Amino acid sequence: MRVRYQDLHEALRGALEKAGLEPSRADLCARLIADSSRDGVHSHGLNLVPRLLNMIRAGVVDVATTPVRVSAHLGFERWDGRRGVGALNAHHSMATAIALARSHGIGCVALANTNHWMRGGTYGWQAADAGVIGICWTNTLPNLPPWGASDPRVGNNPLVIAVPRADGHVVLDMALSQFSYGALAAYRMRGELLPVPGGFDTSGDLTRDPAEIELSRRPLPIGF
Amino acid sequence: MRVRYQDLHEALRGALEKAGLEPSRADLCARLIADSSRDGVHSHGLNLVPRLLNMIRAGVVDVATTPVRVSAHLGFERWDGRRGVGALNAHHSMATAIALARSHGIGCVALANTNHWMRGGTYGWQAADAGVIGICWTNTLPNLPPWGASDPRVGNNPLVIAVPRADGHVVLDMALSQFSYGALAAYRMRGELLPVPGGFDTSGDLTRDPAEIELSRRPLPIGF
Repeated sequence: MRVRYQDLHEALRGALEKAGLEPSRADLCARLIADSSRDGVHSHGLNLVPRLLNMIRAGVVDVATTPVRVSAHLGFERWDGRRGVGALNAHHSMATAIALARSHGIGCVALANTNHWMRGGTYGWQAADAGVIGICWTNTLPNLPPWGASDPRVGNNPLVIAVPRADGHVVLDMALSQFSYGALAAYRMRGELLPVPGGFDTSGDLTRDPAEIELSRRPLPIGF
Repeated sequence: MRVRYQDLHEALRGALEKAGLEPSRADLCARLIADSSRDGVHSHGLNLVPRLLNMIRAGVVDVATTPVRVSAHLGFERWDGRRGVGALNAHHSMATAIALARSHGIGCVALANTNHWMRGGTYGWQAADAGVIGICWTNTLPNLPPWGASDPRVGNNPLVIAVPRADGHVVLDMALSQFSYGALAAYRMRGELLPVPGGFDTSGDLTRDPAEIELSRRPLPIGF
């Protein structure tokens, strides 16, 4: 089934307004999500919406709050996300970093107390569309064992690097595991094995089965 | 054989002065190289010195030149390394970036026309020792095929991230291939196979033999 971008955006906007987001914020958040699905990053677009709505209902995400600046030193600022909507907090932070870069040549925003930013590449595109180079990263929940360990204690923290170009931006959006959880899910849904071992199964053996790695939460880190 | 740090530094300083470096620059360059060997990064310390001296003799590296600033926009500056000594150019650039960070909260220096910076981590330690977070990267010669290709056309460009800590800095210094060429050489010299395939042999098959990958120059990129 094909869904028009406009219809997807509209439906998301309605759902987010109903969940309590102020109209202009619901509209922006819906656009960020719809863009990710339109770009083919299904795992980090529409597919994350049920989780977002659950977190709002559970009171983990506060739809009414906006980030506040806690300290500023020239081109470097620290902000408190106050557990607001992760994607909107991240979008606001990149907008602030872009403004800092305009005044200082380069800028950096560190954001605390926030939630899932959904597709990391979104904020890379945001920077590149504004004509600036963007570099962003975040932590995740613990979903990767430290090297040599068996329990997931660190994250496969995504890294985003975006470079604006007239002929089309270059945007890197990657996880720090050999396969991101989104990639594992995509292989599983296509009924495919990974081309090489991507982590350990629940018995502690290396495996090419994506579902086993999703279960064990023991993917291999990039570069071993 | 154990060599005292002081003796190594002294011998390197003498060799670099003989190669034409001005005394204070020979002293600094010798320290950077001796530190790398002292820290156990043999592949990027003393072991690179014959190559450096050959490049000086061949006129590729100009020992007498120092970098010049070509443009500045607040916390962001571009410099021309004028094909000077790579390690000294990189050290100068990090010193400049640290000064920019002091005046702008965050600073960035882009350096062109330079040579091998030897151990990338050196400039991460330099930043952390100055009490600031440092991020650095560089290109290499083409030594990594683009994904799906057979000829090395891109580099396994190193990435360095350093965070100062009172209890000891955290410094990441990594290549963007599954195994750096330094790591491949170390496995080869120990007579060991890699724990997993690290690239292709000259027949185009995946191999765990480090020497074959050094020969083919077809390592696998991190995260496949």
